[in-house]
Amino acid sequence: MVDRFKPLFERDSAPTSLIIESVSPAIDCGRHAAKRETGDTLDVAADIFKDGHDRLAAVLKFRKRGETAWRETPMTHIDNDRWGGSVRLSEPGAFEYTIEAFPHPWRTWLEGTTKKISAGLDIALELREGAAILETLPRSEPLIASALATIAAGGNQALIMEELQSPRLAAACLTHADRSAGATLSYPLPLWVDRQAARFAAWYELFPRSAGTKPDQSGTFQDVIGQLPRISEMGFDVLYFTPIHPIGTTKRKGKNNSVIAEPGDPGVPYAIGNAEGGHDAIEPGLGTIADFDRLVAAAKAHGLEIALDLAIQASPDHPWVKEHPEWFTIRPDGSIMFAENPPKKYEDIFPVNFSGSDWKGLWEELKRIVLFWVSHGVLTFRVDNPHTKPTIFWEWLIDEVRRVNPNVIFLSEAFTRPKVMKSLAKSGFSQSYTYFTWRHGKQELIDYFTELTQTEAAEYMRGNLFPSTHDINTWFLQTGGRAGHKLRHVLAATLSSVYGIYSGYELCESTPVPGKEEHLNSEKYEYTVRDWDKSGNIVADITRLNAIRRVHPALHEYDNLRFFWSESDQLLCYGKTTPDHSDNILIVVNLDPFNAQSGRIWFPLDDFGLEGANAIQATDLISGQSWTWHGGDQWVRLDPAVESAHIFHLEAR
Amino acid sequence: MVDRFKPLFERDSAPTSLIIESVSPAIDCGRHAAKRETGDTLDVAADIFKDGHDRLAAVLKFRKRGETAWRETPMTHIDNDRWGGSVRLSEPGAFEYTIEAFPHPWRTWLEGTTKKISAGLDIALELREGAAILETLPRSEPLIASALATIAAGGNQALIMEELQSPRLAAACLTHADRSAGATLSYPLPLWVDRQAARFAAWYELFPRSAGTKPDQSGTFQDVIGQLPRISEMGFDVLYFTPIHPIGTTKRKGKNNSVIAEPGDPGVPYAIGNAEGGHDAIEPGLGTIADFDRLVAAAKAHGLEIALDLAIQASPDHPWVKEHPEWFTIRPDGSIMFAENPPKKYEDIFPVNFSGSDWKGLWEELKRIVLFWVSHGVLTFRVDNPHTKPTIFWEWLIDEVRRVNPNVIFLSEAFTRPKVMKSLAKSGFSQSYTYFTWRHGKQELIDYFTELTQTEAAEYMRGNLFPSTHDINTWFLQTGGRAGHKLRHVLAATLSSVYGIYSGYELCESTPVPGKEEHLNSEKYEYTVRDWDKSGNIVADITRLNAIRRVHPALHEYDNLRFFWSESDQLLCYGKTTPDHSDNILIVVNLDPFNAQSGRIWFPLDDFGLEGANAIQATDLISGQSWTWHGGDQWVRLDPAVESAHIFHLEAR
Repeated sequence: MVDRFKPLFERDSAPTSLIIESVSPAIDCGRHAAKRETGDTLDVAADIFKDGHDRLAAVLKFRKRGETAWRETPMTHIDNDRWGGSVRLSEPGAFEYTIEAFPHPWRTWLEGTTKKISAGLDIALELREGAAILETLPRSEPLIASALATIAAGGNQALIMEELQSPRLAAACLTHADRSAGATLSYPLPLWVDRQAARFAAWYELFPRSAGTKPDQSGTFQDVIGQLPRISEMGFDVLYFTPIHPIGTTKRKGKNNSVIAEPGDPGVPYAIGNAEGGHDAIEPGLGTIADFDRLVAAAKAHGLEIALDLAIQASPDHPWVKEHPEWFTIRPDGSIMFAENPPKKYEDIFPVNFSGSDWKGLWEELKRIVLFWVSHGVLTFRVDNPHTKPTIFWEWLIDEVRRVNPNVIFLSEAFTRPKVMKSLAKSGFSQSYTYFTWRHGKQELIDYFTELTQTEAAEYMRGNLFPSTHDINTWFLQTGGRAGHKLRHVLAATLSSVYGIYSGYELCESTPVPGKEEHLNSEKYEYTVRDWDKSGNIVADITRLNAIRRVHPALHEYDNLRFFWSESDQLLCYGKTTPDHSDNILIVVNLDPFNAQSGRIWFPLDDFGLEGANAIQATDLISGQSWTWHGGDQWVRLDPAVESAHIFHLEAR
Repeated sequence: MVDRFKPLFERDSAPTSLIIESVSPAIDCGRHAAKRETGDTLDVAADIFKDGHDRLAAVLKFRKRGETAWRETPMTHIDNDRWGGSVRLSEPGAFEYTIEAFPHPWRTWLEGTTKKISAGLDIALELREGAAILETLPRSEPLIASALATIAAGGNQALIMEELQSPRLAAACLTHADRSAGATLSYPLPLWVDRQAARFAAWYELFPRSAGTKPDQSGTFQDVIGQLPRISEMGFDVLYFTPIHPIGTTKRKGKNNSVIAEPGDPGVPYAIGNAEGGHDAIEPGLGTIADFDRLVAAAKAHGLEIALDLAIQASPDHPWVKEHPEWFTIRPDGSIMFAENPPKKYEDIFPVNFSGSDWKGLWEELKRIVLFWVSHGVLTFRVDNPHTKPTIFWEWLIDEVRRVNPNVIFLSEAFTRPKVMKSLAKSGFSQSYTYFTWRHGKQELIDYFTELTQTEAAEYMRGNLFPSTHDINTWFLQTGGRAGHKLRHVLAATLSSVYGIYSGYELCESTPVPGKEEHLNSEKYEYTVRDWDKSGNIVADITRLNAIRRVHPALHEYDNLRFFWSESDQLLCYGKTTPDHSDNILIVVNLDPFNAQSGRIWFPLDDFGLEGANAIQATDLISGQSWTWHGGDQWVRLDPAVESAHIFHLEAR
C-alpha cells in the first residue's frame, strides 16, 4: 500500500486541504473518454470544497492531444459545493481536461472585513492584513498598486473599503492568485470529439451486388450509382455496403445457407478473400477500385457518404491463409480452425487469432486495411461482430485510425451481453447497434431508452437503431405488415438521432425462413433484384420522416429524449426539445399495428419551455393537421390503418 | 496525454482483453477506504468479462497493510457479467484488496468438446487440443498426469470424456491456470476494519465537573466514579467527557456566555490551557492523571469506555502560546488572531494555524497528544469542529494513530455542509454527527436516513445520532416535553446502530436561552448539579431501550434500515433485520408528541423472511404486549400520553 503521507512531509509548505471530487463526466474514473460532437458544449462539474471559510476559485483546463499548454475557463459555484464550467467544441479529435482550484484569499479577506466595518468595528488591523495579501501580488497591476497606495495613505476606513470592494480589483487579485495552495485532479480526463454525423444520421444498408436488374448476375458499382438518386431522395445520409471484397469458393454457401453452392451462386460476402485478393481488394463482379472511387464521388454529390463493412475474418482462399497462417489458429493436425458454434460449423470462414505469435503483424495489417479505405474516401465503418475480437484491439485500432483522420466513424455491430456492448462503446466505437430491434412493448422501450439516453451510458454510447438487418427479420415485422414497418421506422428515427434501415424495408419485405427470425431467400446468399415501386411501399413515409428529422434540431440530439405519461399501454408518448426550447417535438406512437388505440396523454409544459403559454399550437408534421391546445393534458387516437404516429411540433401561440 | 498503447507493443505476448470494472466497494475510485467492522464480511463485486466465448475465473485478493503476500478467495459469477467474492474480517486495521481474473482454457475446451460429442461428432482432434492445454500444466498434479495418459491411450471417446469431465480435474487445471493472459485491477483498493464499537454503541455525554454535589465547586473524577453505576445501569457503552484540561483565565467567559466572568466562574472547557498545562494536562479541580487512570479503570469495570473531546484550539494562556507562537496566526500588530465569526469575537480562544511555518511541528505535537491519551486507555475521541481544520490533517492524524492502535475510534463533530461532512468521514473518522438533530418530519427523516444508510455513504460514514448536545437544544425538545424526549430517543437509538445523549436528557432538561436553540444556564459556563431522580425522568425508558438494543442483533447493524409505508403522515414505520432473518424488528414511531395518531402500516413479509409464515407473532418490546398477525397490512394507534413507539419483534408462528 502506498504511504500517501510520506511525500507530504517531504515538502516545506503544508499540503493543500482543498478537495476536488465527483467530477462529471468521468467514465470509469477517467479510463475511458466521454464523447461529444463538434458544435457541442462540454459541461464539466465537480464537488470543490475546503475546510474552514476560505473563498475558492476554480478553472476548467482543456487541451487537444499533443498540446502542452492548457486553455482555461473559469468555473462557477452552482450550489451545495458543486462547481461547473464549459468549453465549446469546434473540431473533432482527442482532447483532455482537468480542474484546478485554489483559495481566493483576497475575497475571503474582503468579505470578512466588509462584515466588520458594516458592524461598526474598527478595521485598521484588517487593512494592514489586506495590504499584506496585496503585497504578494504584482504591483505592475495598476489596480493592485492603487489599492496598496490607498491603504497606505490611510484616512476614512469606509472610503478606503469602497475602493477595495471593486470587483475589478478582486478579478485582478484572482488572476494573480498563488495557486500553490490549491489542487488539481491527479490526472486529466479524456474526451473524444466526433463530427456531428456520429450523432445525427440516417443510414441505408445495401448489398451492392443487388443493385442490378438481372437475378443471375451481380449488380455493379455503376448500378449503385444509378440507385443514388432514389436513396438520396428518401433523405438518407449514409449508404452502408456489406463487404465488397472477393468471396471465397472453398465451402462456399448456396442459396438459403445451403451447405453446397450451385454453380453461379455468388457466396456470402462475409467469406472474404480469394485468389483475387482480400480485405483491400474488390470483388470483380462489382467493378474495380477506380469504379469504387467514382461511386464514392457520385455518392458525395448526392449528399451520401459510403460506409464499409469491416468483417475481420477470412475465407479459406484469402491470401492471408497462405501468406500468414500464423494469423490463424492452427489445429494439432496442421489445419486452420474454422468458425463454429458447436455443433454448428462454418467451414467457409476462418476467424483470425488476435493473440497469435505475430499479433503485432496482424494488428498492423488490419490498421493498414482500414487506412487504405480511408484513403479512398471511406470515413465510416460498420464493424461486424466486434465482440468476438479483443476490446483492447478496437481501442488501439480506432485510436490509431483517428490519429490519422479524426472524422472516421465506427459502428459496433454487437448484439451481445449489455456490458460487453457498453465496453465496445467505451473502447472508442462511435455508434452501437442496440436491443431496439427486439424491444416492442411500451415499458421495455421506456426502460431501455431511459438507460441508453438518460444514464451515464449516454456519455459514451450512441445507439444506432435498426428495425431489421440482413440477418434479423423480427417476428414483429414478419407479422406487423405495412403498419408495423411504418411504426418501427418512426420509433427508430425519433427515439435516437441516428438510425438505419436495410434495403427492402421500404417495400415491407419480411418473408421469413419459416419459424426463424431470418429472411427467406436472403441476399446474403444470392443476387436480389427488387421492384422499388412495388405497391404498398412506405417510401413516401420514410421520405417525409427523414425530411422532418432534417428540419427539426430537436431530433438531432441524442440525450434529450423524455418519456411522458400516457393512459394506454399501447400508446408511447415522448418528446425532444432543444436546450433553448426553440424546437419542441412531441411524439405519440401506437405500438399496436392492428388496432386503433386512444387515450389521454400528459406532458409537463415546462419541459418544453411552454409553462407561460396561453395556448399551444400543435402541428402534426405527418398529417399536417394543427390543433390549439390548452395545457399538457390531451387525448389522442391513432388508427394504424391511417397513421400509427403523431409527430407534433409544439409552439406557444 | 499518456499513450497507453505504446507499452502494449513493447511486450511479446498480446495484451489481455479481459476487463474488470465497476468494482464495489470503491470510494472515489479507491482514493478512500470503505469501512467495515470485525466480524463482518467484505463482499466485493465487479463486472468481469472478455470478448468471445472464453470461460473465465476470478479471485479476490486481500492483505493487511504491510503484508506482501495476498490471501486469495475465489469469486463466482452472479449474473450479467457481475462477479462476487467475500472475505471474513477478524481483526481491526488497514487492509487492501484487488481482483485478478483470467481465462480458464480447460473449462472453455471442456464445454465446447462436450457439446460436440453430445451432437455425435468425432472429437479426435479436440482431444489432441485438450491434451495440449493439459501439457502446459504441471504433471506433478496426479489428475492432470492421469488425464494426459487417458487421452494418449486412446479408445472410446465417450469414456475418455467421462474422466475429463471430472470437476476435480477442472479445479486442478484452474489452480495451475496461466494467469499471464489475465488482468488485475490497476491498483488495490483500501479497506478499514474497525472494532464493532465503531458501529454499535450507546454514548452518554458528561461534563465531569458537573458530577459533584455543590453548585459552586467542581465535581471530580472521583465523583464521576460515583456516577458510573447510574450510567452503566442505563445501558450505555461510551462515556464521553467534554475537555478535561486546564481552562484559560484570559477573557474567560462567565455564566450564560457573559463576556466578563465573575470570581468563581469555572470558564468554558473548550478554552483549553493555562499555566497548569495544555492538551495533555488535567484541570486540577477534576483531579490528577492518576485519578484519571483510576476513573478509566473503574469505567471499564462498569462496561463503559471513556471518550475524550479533542478540541484543537488554545486559550491565550495555553503553554503553546508562549512556546510556539508560530503555531498560531500572528497579526500585523504582533497579536495572535483569536476566533471570530464577524462581527462576533471569541477572544478566549486562539485557533491554531495548520499551514504555518512549523506545520510539521504542530501536526506532530497533536499526534503526540492523542497518543498520550491512548496510552492512558482512551480509545475513543470526539473531535470538536473538525471541519474548520484541514481534512488532509485528519487523514494523516487518524492513520498515524491507528497504526499505533487500530482500535481507536474518532467521532466527527461537524455540523456543516453535507459534502464536507462526508469528506471527513472519507478521511477516516469512524463516526459522524448528523443532521438527525434537526430532522423531525416524516419525509425528511425517510429521505435523510435513506441517503445515510442506503447509498454509497453507508460504506464510509456511520451516523452517530444525538437528539441534543450541550450546544444544541432544539425547538422540538424545548416544546415537545417528556413525550418529545422519549420519541426522539427511540428514533436515535433505532434509526442508527450508534447514538448518544447528553446528560440531563434523561431528565428532559430543555429550558432554553429565550429565542435560541441553546440551553439556559449551560454547564459550558458553570457547575451544574442535578437531581438524577427528578420526577418525570425517562431513565426507565432509556434503560429499557438500551437493553432491547443489546439483545437484538438487528439493531446492531447500520445499513439494514428499511422504511415502510404508513398511512399517517405522523407515523414513521421502519424495520431492521439480520441477514438470516433470525432477528426481525419492526418499529412505528408517532412523530407527534402531543396527539394520538393512528392508521394503517404495511411491510413486505419477504423483507423479514416471513413470506411463508401462516401467522406472525408481533411482540412489542416496549409494552410487552403480543399480537398474532396475518400479513404485513396492520393498523396501529400510538398515544404519546402512553407510548410514542412500538418496537415489534416479529417471529413466524
